[in-house]
Amino acid sequence: MLDVYVSGVGMTLFGKRKESLPELMAEAAHKALQDAGLEEVDAIYIGVMNPEAFIQEGNFASLIADHLQLAGTPAVRIETASSSGAAAFHMAYQAIASGYYKRILVLGGEKMTHLNTTQTTKILAEVIDRSERSCGATMPALAAMLTERYLKEYKISQNTMQKMLALVAIKNHYNGSLNPYAQFQHVLSEKQYLESKVVAFPLKLYDCAPITDGAAAVILTSDKTKVRVAGLGQGTDTLAIRHRTSFTSFRATRLAAFRAYQMARLNPEDIDFAEVHDAFTPFEIIGTEDLGFFPPGKGIKALEKGETHLKGRLPINPSGGLKARGHPVGASGLAQIVEIVWQLRRQVEPPRQLDKARIGLAQSIGGLATNNFVTILERTDLWRTFPANWQGTYPLPTDRALSVRKTNEEIAEEGVIETFTVLYTTPEGFPSPLPLALIKDIKGNWVIARGRSLKHLKIGNRVTLHKVGDSYYFLARTYLDKVNLSLRRILRKWSKSKRYRVLNPFLLKKKKEVKTVGL
Amino acid sequence: MLDVYVSGVGMTLFGKRKESLPELMAEAAHKALQDAGLEEVDAIYIGVMNPEAFIQEGNFASLIADHLQLAGTPAVRIETASSSGAAAFHMAYQAIASGYYKRILVLGGEKMTHLNTTQTTKILAEVIDRSERSCGATMPALAAMLTERYLKEYKISQNTMQKMLALVAIKNHYNGSLNPYAQFQHVLSEKQYLESKVVAFPLKLYDCAPITDGAAAVILTSDKTKVRVAGLGQGTDTLAIRHRTSFTSFRATRLAAFRAYQMARLNPEDIDFAEVHDAFTPFEIIGTEDLGFFPPGKGIKALEKGETHLKGRLPINPSGGLKARGHPVGASGLAQIVEIVWQLRRQVEPPRQLDKARIGLAQSIGGLATNNFVTILERTDLWRTFPANWQGTYPLPTDRALSVRKTNEEIAEEGVIETFTVLYTTPEGFPSPLPLALIKDIKGNWVIARGRSLKHLKIGNRVTLHKVGDSYYFLARTYLDKVNLSLRRILRKWSKSKRYRVLNPFLLKKKKEVKTVGL
Repeated sequence: MLDVYVSGVGMTLFGKRKESLPELMAEAAHKALQDAGLEEVDAIYIGVMNPEAFIQEGNFASLIADHLQLAGTPAVRIETASSSGAAAFHMAYQAIASGYYKRILVLGGEKMTHLNTTQTTKILAEVIDRSERSCGATMPALAAMLTERYLKEYKISQNTMQKMLALVAIKNHYNGSLNPYAQFQHVLSEKQYLESKVVAFPLKLYDCAPITDGAAAVILTSDKTKVRVAGLGQGTDTLAIRHRTSFTSFRATRLAAFRAYQMARLNPEDIDFAEVHDAFTPFEIIGTEDLGFFPPGKGIKALEKGETHLKGRLPINPSGGLKARGHPVGASGLAQIVEIVWQLRRQVEPPRQLDKARIGLAQSIGGLATNNFVTILERTDLWRTFPANWQGTYPLPTDRALSVRKTNEEIAEEGVIETFTVLYTTPEGFPSPLPLALIKDIKGNWVIARGRSLKHLKIGNRVTLHKVGDSYYFLARTYLDKVNLSLRRILRKWSKSKRYRVLNPFLLKKKKEVKTVGL
Repeated sequence: MLDVYVSGVGMTLFGKRKESLPELMAEAAHKALQDAGLEEVDAIYIGVMNPEAFIQEGNFASLIADHLQLAGTPAVRIETASSSGAAAFHMAYQAIASGYYKRILVLGGEKMTHLNTTQTTKILAEVIDRSERSCGATMPALAAMLTERYLKEYKISQNTMQKMLALVAIKNHYNGSLNPYAQFQHVLSEKQYLESKVVAFPLKLYDCAPITDGAAAVILTSDKTKVRVAGLGQGTDTLAIRHRTSFTSFRATRLAAFRAYQMARLNPEDIDFAEVHDAFTPFEIIGTEDLGFFPPGKGIKALEKGETHLKGRLPINPSGGLKARGHPVGASGLAQIVEIVWQLRRQVEPPRQLDKARIGLAQSIGGLATNNFVTILERTDLWRTFPANWQGTYPLPTDRALSVRKTNEEIAEEGVIETFTVLYTTPEGFPSPLPLALIKDIKGNWVIARGRSLKHLKIGNRVTLHKVGDSYYFLARTYLDKVNLSLRRILRKWSKSKRYRVLNPFLLKKKKEVKTVGL
């Protein structure tokens, strides 16, 4: 396997841009080509999430090659939801490492701000398991549920957790304020954070990465340069969060990290700084734990002590992260790598430059942590030995998915709230606020259900479940519910009796099953 | 670069299937895994064109890994329009050749038949250049225009051409009738062909590949097996056909073929049989010429002589091709490779088995020949020398794109028809029949325009052009047109005079430009 190096990087200003996506991608591409001193490449690998829905353009790889006036050059589009930029980088790595190509232009980009929030939310929600999105769950809703679970698991008060999330947002906005490519170049105060509206309890507006236009580009080559790709790893997980064993850690990240550390022959403590996928502020905390930087549940302690600050022991998201630099979904995974290359080459304006950094790591998340990538880059002038019997300290993840994907899970009528959220920015056709909960029924099945009331939302509370159409509804079990449940049991029993059949012939007509498209 | 081998293949029956796309892909995957004697792989590379639009599923790579009960295994989705299956195969090749992975499951699939023709046509037309599709051009329309050009260039009568196209359809239906995986397992008579309705003049229904559901799978490995990947090549071309120099040959195919032949150290005459992307019957004729099997313009002679028949010198599409096996867009590129592997392994039921075939070639087209792939597979027991100074006979394509992509071409008012079609199956919002022509204006610019009448449609005819909204309209220049044109010239001159401005203040108000989304 040949060594792979970065010979050029470039990116556009992230934010609300008036240019078209091909124009933005051309801007990033030309910067990277200029940086590498190239006019042509052997191939173009493009990471983009959904240009068909966002800008009504299919055949996007050909379109970009054509737009770059490189029609003829092989071009492919690679997609793994919000980690598509990182995925394109990994594919290009393999092509260079094989010797099949010598120089590849990797491009990531997305154009999103021209659509309204409802349209964008709908496109982004298509990455979620069909049955989970059918009850109104969005990306922020699922992230919020995991956050509630995190504080329950590690016995953190709601108040402390909110302060920790604020710390992530404030830190990343501070870093972003120093980054001329960031969408938000203003600092954020705790007051501003606390006063911002709740999107999905407990996540506020400032806990969520913004909607952004932008593009990033990297040139990979087999000729030695200052920056080498040391390690790569990818991992996937179940689409449905209800099929997972852990809700406070992402197995896809841990699988990717294990592979990347093994390949690079490095351990988490060797990493000098990292770009972590903070699409939601709790994801940065979970990310730093999954990457082995801090033990599970200790991420918030490290954050509180300032270890992840720009001048801390292990700076996280010196660029401002997705939170402040912005999150054009197809570009983010590649923009992280651009930042790491700039830091390693000492091309960042002080005070943002990390003066001693020699090894940087990027972690990118696709969907709700279903398709994650870890990329480790290092300076080639770093002296390192590669012992033949090197053994890493980072453990191989051994946990498996909770259950196989079932299309017709028979959910019982009673269950317990395992985690919950109240969604305020709801998808079209859903009321706001919308209570949602991940529920484990008495038979051990898991389901995400809609609530009818904001009362009694608490992890551990018992609920009754009932199905309407394809979705489940839950109701916290109060005294009246118990009475109701008993009555319904009696009614059900009676409905099977002969007398009922005679009296209610119409009620027995089976409701025709509605045929759903595709899955 | 490590050698790469095929250790397993599988595919579903193609056609109208009631199963969901993940179910179809799982069926193909399990067959290939079983064929290779594997239960797990290192990674899954998925070729699929547009699951977001066809079945409302994003994050498709994760979804498929999950559905295969392989959540955890790295999975990526690769897309190059209708050649996505071939693109996934190429990416997987690079990963195995680099040594990064040892065993990859390559999967291609698409689910299309549940939508109506209008919806499917709209999704498929998004691969066409925006300005060309804005005047109503669809894939069949563009293919028909190229066909008209072909017969003009090679001085073939309309009648002869139609007979040649019929020969392709009849040959491929015959092969398909012997293929238990084909969508159409019935033979086609010349009468049936001639009686079928015209889709886009001169292309009839039986000239177009059908809309199909289906999936195909291939396992690639670095361990030696009976079938080796000998050569690969990819080429792209301008999205807009008006920016090309040739309308009777695809530069993207020739670039891909050159690279594949060079890598395999083979010449066209070494190929024993080929699967050629016959989404439209003329594409098979053009394909056999582009691949160097026959000189330009001689493809139809070879067809007439039966050289490409199942028992001919060089069987083309022994599977039935896209025409008869069916064309689930993301699967087709991979289904071609499955057929080649089966032929090389002698696993095909006679009389379809090609007994002496040792080297097979697959050519896959993305979009309107914007992103094409050529893949050459060979039996490993074939004795071949690799001379160090091997030089191929297949020439490096040197023709370039006609012009760079311009967004605001200033088209003159007069021009000449370079090729044309009459589209009968039109997209939503367009009347049927719809005359369309590729026109070169007197300044040398090219444009695709809509006609207002079916009269005077002939290559070489002079037309007048005018713009309505974003689209151009053309009118064949009859005597009356000339008078009209003169009148309009006088009017235009007068409209710039002072007197006109005084008289017509309203007419001078500039029409507000309509903002278009994205591009």
